[in-house]
Amino acid sequence: MEKAVILVQCPDQKGIVARISEFVFRYNGNIIQADQYTTDPENGQYFMRLSFCFDPDKVPPAHLEKEFDILARSMDATWRIHYDSVTMRMGILVSRQDHCLADLLYLWRSGELPVEIPCVISNHPDAREIVEQYGVPFYHVPVSRDSREAAEKRILDLTSESTDFLVLARYMQILTGGFLEGYGKDVINIHHSFLPSFKGANPYRQAYERGVKVIGATAHYVTVNLDEGPIIDQVVERVSHRYDVQRLMRKGKNLEKLALANAVQAHIEHRIIRYRNKTVVFD
Amino acid sequence: MEKAVILVQCPDQKGIVARISEFVFRYNGNIIQADQYTTDPENGQYFMRLSFCFDPDKVPPAHLEKEFDILARSMDATWRIHYDSVTMRMGILVSRQDHCLADLLYLWRSGELPVEIPCVISNHPDAREIVEQYGVPFYHVPVSRDSREAAEKRILDLTSESTDFLVLARYMQILTGGFLEGYGKDVINIHHSFLPSFKGANPYRQAYERGVKVIGATAHYVTVNLDEGPIIDQVVERVSHRYDVQRLMRKGKNLEKLALANAVQAHIEHRIIRYRNKTVVFD
Amino acid sequence: MEKAVILVQCPDQKGIVARISEFVFRYNGNIIQADQYTTDPENGQYFMRLSFCFDPDKVPPAHLEKEFDILARSMDATWRIHYDSVTMRMGILVSRQDHCLADLLYLWRSGELPVEIPCVISNHPDAREIVEQYGVPFYHVPVSRDSREAAEKRILDLTSESTDFLVLARYMQILTGGFLEGYGKDVINIHHSFLPSFKGANPYRQAYERGVKVIGATAHYVTVNLDEGPIIDQVVERVSHRYDVQRLMRKGKNLEKLALANAVQAHIEHRIIRYRNKTVVFD
Amino acid sequence: MEKAVILVQCPDQKGIVARISEFVFRYNGNIIQADQYTTDPENGQYFMRLSFCFDPDKVPPAHLEKEFDILARSMDATWRIHYDSVTMRMGILVSRQDHCLADLLYLWRSGELPVEIPCVISNHPDAREIVEQYGVPFYHVPVSRDSREAAEKRILDLTSESTDFLVLARYMQILTGGFLEGYGKDVINIHHSFLPSFKGANPYRQAYERGVKVIGATAHYVTVNLDEGPIIDQVVERVSHRYDVQRLMRKGKNLEKLALANAVQAHIEHRIIRYRNKTVVFD
Repeated sequence: MEKAVILVQCPDQKGIVARISEFVFRYNGNIIQADQYTTDPENGQYFMRLSFCFDPDKVPPAHLEKEFDILARSMDATWRIHYDSVTMRMGILVSRQDHCLADLLYLWRSGELPVEIPCVISNHPDAREIVEQYGVPFYHVPVSRDSREAAEKRILDLTSESTDFLVLARYMQILTGGFLEGYGKDVINIHHSFLPSFKGANPYRQAYERGVKVIGATAHYVTVNLDEGPIIDQVVERVSHRYDVQRLMRKGKNLEKLALANAVQAHIEHRIIRYRNKTVVFD
Repeated sequence: MEKAVILVQCPDQKGIVARISEFVFRYNGNIIQADQYTTDPENGQYFMRLSFCFDPDKVPPAHLEKEFDILARSMDATWRIHYDSVTMRMGILVSRQDHCLADLLYLWRSGELPVEIPCVISNHPDAREIVEQYGVPFYHVPVSRDSREAAEKRILDLTSESTDFLVLARYMQILTGGFLEGYGKDVINIHHSFLPSFKGANPYRQAYERGVKVIGATAHYVTVNLDEGPIIDQVVERVSHRYDVQRLMRKGKNLEKLALANAVQAHIEHRIIRYRNKTVVFD
Repeated sequence: MEKAVILVQCPDQKGIVARISEFVFRYNGNIIQADQYTTDPENGQYFMRLSFCFDPDKVPPAHLEKEFDILARSMDATWRIHYDSVTMRMGILVSRQDHCLADLLYLWRSGELPVEIPCVISNHPDAREIVEQYGVPFYHVPVSRDSREAAEKRILDLTSESTDFLVLARYMQILTGGFLEGYGKDVINIHHSFLPSFKGANPYRQAYERGVKVIGATAHYVTVNLDEGPIIDQVVERVSHRYDVQRLMRKGKNLEKLALANAVQAHIEHRIIRYRNKTVVFD
Repeated sequence: MEKAVILVQCPDQKGIVARISEFVFRYNGNIIQADQYTTDPENGQYFMRLSFCFDPDKVPPAHLEKEFDILARSMDATWRIHYDSVTMRMGILVSRQDHCLADLLYLWRSGELPVEIPCVISNHPDAREIVEQYGVPFYHVPVSRDSREAAEKRILDLTSESTDFLVLARYMQILTGGFLEGYGKDVINIHHSFLPSFKGANPYRQAYERGVKVIGATAHYVTVNLDEGPIIDQVVERVSHRYDVQRLMRKGKNLEKLALANAVQAHIEHRIIRYRNKTVVFD
């Protein structure tokens, strides 16, 4: 038996659930979980995540997909399918701060993040040791003002074939629109503030100056607009006037690790649908 | 158009979603939201909350229910239906502490809790003024060791016909198994601790003595086993050694109000299914 | 015995604690609690909150204050003293949304907010009933574009003598710099977002549009810069894509009530020192 | 200049702050931070944490301690002093689950936990690789019912001289009263539940069976009464009916890491005073 997840998005209309669940039933599949969400009962968008089992010997995936596409077209739906037997391949970019990197590598090795990690790329050499200890290839791709283009080309060469998505685990370089277009797949970033507060550089210093009583971290998909992409997860914690910038950063690291790990987990379990610069994250 | 919610529970089996959604489709209904949960992919229990619209002029509710019952039997399912046009009637029991009572009355008057409140009953006279200010009938039913039986009979007389469920908004008397059986409908309690910690009397003092660093409040359905019923919601907050019992109580009141309001809201929106001394609470 | 709180702020220097505590000791006072905070061990600002008892028959307050002032000058300190026997007088301004108002009135009547409430003022007549039920004078002061000046003058007349501080409990009019200067005492506002995110109008709609996964409320002192004043407290909670604007507002109301009540509590217990558009809030 | 922390506990009495701060002042020391807490204004216990700088060339530590002891005796106080120049030595015990161990090692290497780690001891060989990668000595000390006594003797040999405190980072063996007495210093444990709920084995399964809506982790000092020692920190998070035992465990691991790291941080910064099976944790 193969396990698969279908993500569907279409204009809300009568009979969607009936037709999709009947489809699975017809191919003798068994629905494990079906989550759905409609933006608005009247005239809204409909989102579905359907997790089901089927027998690929009796129903070849290619056939299933072809048939589902016919159904989807009749509902004006966009859709994607993911098979449990296919492991997602995650590329990681990182700069000097390695707490998120170390957390992802640990979760990966302990089996909690069932992905492949074909490469870790950094604009600094510092992380080489920790990465190679885990047996993961490390590439040092320095970036300066003049070398940005070449660096992005190098990163693209390293990742475009070998990875299914990228994670910026405190990568402090801005990826250009050209790179994002060239890569063409999802890129997840962790921003060390509670967005939309404190975009840009030094968010902990900004938070300190403003005197906030709660700090946060935000995992989001990267778009060309810096720190403006669809938010996947946010984690927050109380602080007090006693927190100077250093202590805010120390506490913030835990929030960053948590928000990023949550986001990656949801992404590889195909629980996220992007929609109008927002996300539907099925729990 | 009438809006209705069906809650279904049955052994997990192939085709449930297909059959139920096809049922709605057949009667020209429109699914607004469908939530489901299976305890365990193999051999588990299946739970569904289906919110849908239909035209009662074309499909009389009685007919709908009769037909659905046939379908339900074929799946070995238990089920309930609730119509949006029928307002739930909530009875409240309270003792001296009136913060949860005041919160419920305020939410009710501001339209956020769309229920009827046929009566508030207390073993103390203190709450009369606030209750009657809201135009709600107040009954003082004192309870002493000797009068418990008579008191419960009086409460039963006041509530068994006029209410659909009861809320113990800091009612400090224990309801007997006899009462619960006689009432036969749901009773929601707020316990002023993070259950299962600190059952019984004086939980804030117990929390203080144990030196916990987080306190909580728990809303749960009442069963004959005191503080052991199915948990609906829990709300918690950090405290420090600086909190004496008084201050724990003061902070705790906010948690109690929040947990109880959340639980009542979920209950009247028919988002809860009780199962094996636990709850499925659809969000 | 009288209980008092002294709040002190001065450049950090050797011997502050020794000198202040010696001062209390000399007048036979007893320190109940002493909290302090230094922004920065070298060259920083020092803040102290000292709660102590003394015998006003033996040490008249006027004498105590005169002597303390001499000490304070020698340390280049600003300071304030508050006596427990003097009850703070809180004026409330409100518009249509009355949840924060209702919460403050309830806390006041139940004895948890030991203040006097000389008046509630609103630019709408809606809240009159609830306010007068509590036996508090209600004033309807409508505000239109043309009447702003007159309205602010009227509010000033009602509050400048009778109150020690004002609370904007969802008062949706902007107070001018002229008013703030004329009033000259603290004004606390509740903003219905997690500042600095979503300043200005309709923060819940802004939060919905941005797709945040956590919402919040912020209590702060009012300054001429809208939503930019020193933050006193922030309360946050997780939300998901399932929350439409209405539901965000409903959940947000609880956060607003909590943040505002916390802020007022800290204010009347003289636990707050304002400093460079930030606050030191002793716990 | 040397930096030191003094922790003081004594019956509340007049003039404590004055006398202690005067003491520091007399030796030309500079108070960096002074935190205090009194259990109860009348007849309570007084706790103080005093962080200060002094010049050890002018005031030898031995002299300072001798003089302070005289002062302490006069107030019937117990006290301890810690010098910043002396690094705390932390021994770690672990079983199979290595997430807390990995977190502590990472924090240590990144400089956030300024301790020495003379040894990691485990009753299983599994953690050897990760520990030795960090350059820390690893000792495998198997424990069976018959070998407990020998094993505890071996652990005592390894730790009694070389460590200042022990951390049980998911060490699933019970340490006997004999061991604790023999070691005679602080032992910190992480329990994977929100104590006092779910003591003993399999707390996540217990939490699942009870159907709680919030889970937690508790860091506490170990005493002879299992899971009953003074609580240092607790971290909690919301869960829903969708969480099976596996997923509770996965989420719980983050809470365990956080609670334990917080507790160790507070311990090595000498911010904790134990008192009557509770803790005062200065922030």
